[in-house]
Amino acid sequence: MKELLYEGKAKKVFCTDKPEELLLEYKDDATAFNGKKKEAFRGKGELNNKISSKIFTLLEAKGTPTHFLKELSDTEQLVTRTSIIPLEVVVRNKAAGSLVRRLGIEDGMSLHPPLIELFYKNDDLDDPLINDRHALLLAEVTHKELMTIKEKALKVNDVLLEIFEDCDLSLVDFKLEFGRTEGGDLLLSDEVSPDTCRLRDKQTGAKMDKDVFREGTGELVPVYENILQRLEGATCAK
Amino acid sequence: MKELLYEGKAKKVFCTDKPEELLLEYKDDATAFNGKKKEAFRGKGELNNKISSKIFTLLEAKGTPTHFLKELSDTEQLVTRTSIIPLEVVVRNKAAGSLVRRLGIEDGMSLHPPLIELFYKNDDLDDPLINDRHALLLAEVTHKELMTIKEKALKVNDVLLEIFEDCDLSLVDFKLEFGRTEGGDLLLSDEVSPDTCRLRDKQTGAKMDKDVFREGTGELVPVYENILQRLEGATCAK
Ligand SMILES: Nc1ncnc2c1ncn2[C@@H]1O[C@H](COP(=O)(O)OP(=O)(O)O)[C@@H](O)[C@H]1O
Ligand SMILES: Nc1ncnc2c1ncn2[C@@H]1O[C@H](COP(=O)(O)OP(=O)(O)O)[C@@H](O)[C@H]1O
Ligand SMILES: [Mg+2]
Ligand SMILES: [Mg+2]
Repeated sequence: MKELLYEGKAKKVFCTDKPEELLLEYKDDATAFNGKKKEAFRGKGELNNKISSKIFTLLEAKGTPTHFLKELSDTEQLVTRTSIIPLEVVVRNKAAGSLVRRLGIEDGMSLHPPLIELFYKNDDLDDPLINDRHALLLAEVTHKELMTIKEKALKVNDVLLEIFEDCDLSLVDFKLEFGRTEGGDLLLSDEVSPDTCRLRDKQTGAKMDKDVFREGTGELVPVYENILQRLEGATCAK
Repeated sequence: MKELLYEGKAKKVFCTDKPEELLLEYKDDATAFNGKKKEAFRGKGELNNKISSKIFTLLEAKGTPTHFLKELSDTEQLVTRTSIIPLEVVVRNKAAGSLVRRLGIEDGMSLHPPLIELFYKNDDLDDPLINDRHALLLAEVTHKELMTIKEKALKVNDVLLEIFEDCDLSLVDFKLEFGRTEGGDLLLSDEVSPDTCRLRDKQTGAKMDKDVFREGTGELVPVYENILQRLEGATCAK
């Protein structure tokens, strides 16, 4: 029996025989608005496991270390255990979603350089937006670590922009989580998937991510399948 | 007839014969929660005009330039006209109010160095908290101006801490607004009063500011009268 360490909204976290490694099991659940909207989609866990594995592999290949070690099954992956820093690090290339609602910025406005936002990862407080000083107070990171996190996030953005460009997808924004390894290094953790990225088809502008579920405007599973196909096609073509 | 330029929640702004000067008339209205709670208190306008004039005079005397020029009547003051930067610059010496509610930080926690927060001054959006990059996007300030604003805000904090210390009051937090003069300089504008500062009696810990109205826990006018008396007493004693 695998020992369940923690069950989140999208993944279950299990111990392995090695203390420095964890098993992540991707669930079929989709949630939005901090869990207020919730539904299960058969096949979503498998799709996100495969998409996330693919993207982490590509990130590694392009020199960006991640927690990803290997795919273990359709819905499971092996990762380096980290102590998660309770920050949601959002990188935005274009204005969308909460940025538009909160600040009245025009939907789709280009953001150069990309805009980084920090949210305090705390479901009870509804993941509030915070500034750098709040992050030092709440997330127990040093100023230097925070700067490293932002640099890494921008580097990830550069690589993701390239990856999705090859898939004819435009990357509007995404959310990252970083964790601290045993050795004290900051390592990209959690997932990179259509649950955590806003993607648009470059030709039609169609939304190709969890927004179809958030906004109830389309079928989630076919969209995620399409993303996986594009990622597989793009990497085969190289 | 004075020409009314703008009527805000707490003050009316009138033109004068000089284009570079404005007349501010302090109103009796008290508002809280972005105007959702509202009540008029006879005498409040006069008290805030006098308190704000006193504090601006003390700030000037301690080398901190402000928009204040002179008191014109019980409720009116003459100020340098500025183009207001739509930022509410909040400086916190101790955690209180929205910081506690939003981020779950313990009420009363000491903040060293003082915590600066920026809010986008926009009633329709409920003055949302923003980060530095948002400020550059929304408030049309340069990075350099933003750094100057923060420095000035900390300098004002140092002087206010001294002023209120002499009044046996502890300064929990306060909100500032800065404006740009014709010449392009940043100048402390708006008001500094118990409407915009959180003050506690050093002996009893009693709230001595708009919180008595916000929270409905006391009489506003006597509290503001007490603040003015203490300010007058403290400056006479010198
Ligand atoms: N490498 C890792 N080591 C430890 N925890 C991780 C790692 N990667 C992700 N996690 C954590 O796994 C948990 C489960 O993920 P998820 O279901 O997305 O949770 P949530 O409901 O918080 O979004 C989250 O708390 C996430 O931060
Ligand atoms: N020196 C100044 N020059 C121009 N406008 C000013 C100056 N000082 C304050 N103001 C503006 O006067 C207006 C009236 O003040 P107030 O009643 O407090 O407004 P609000 O309802 O926005 O809080 C505000 O928009 C404030 O920013
Ligand atoms: Mg998650
Ligand atoms: Mg005001």
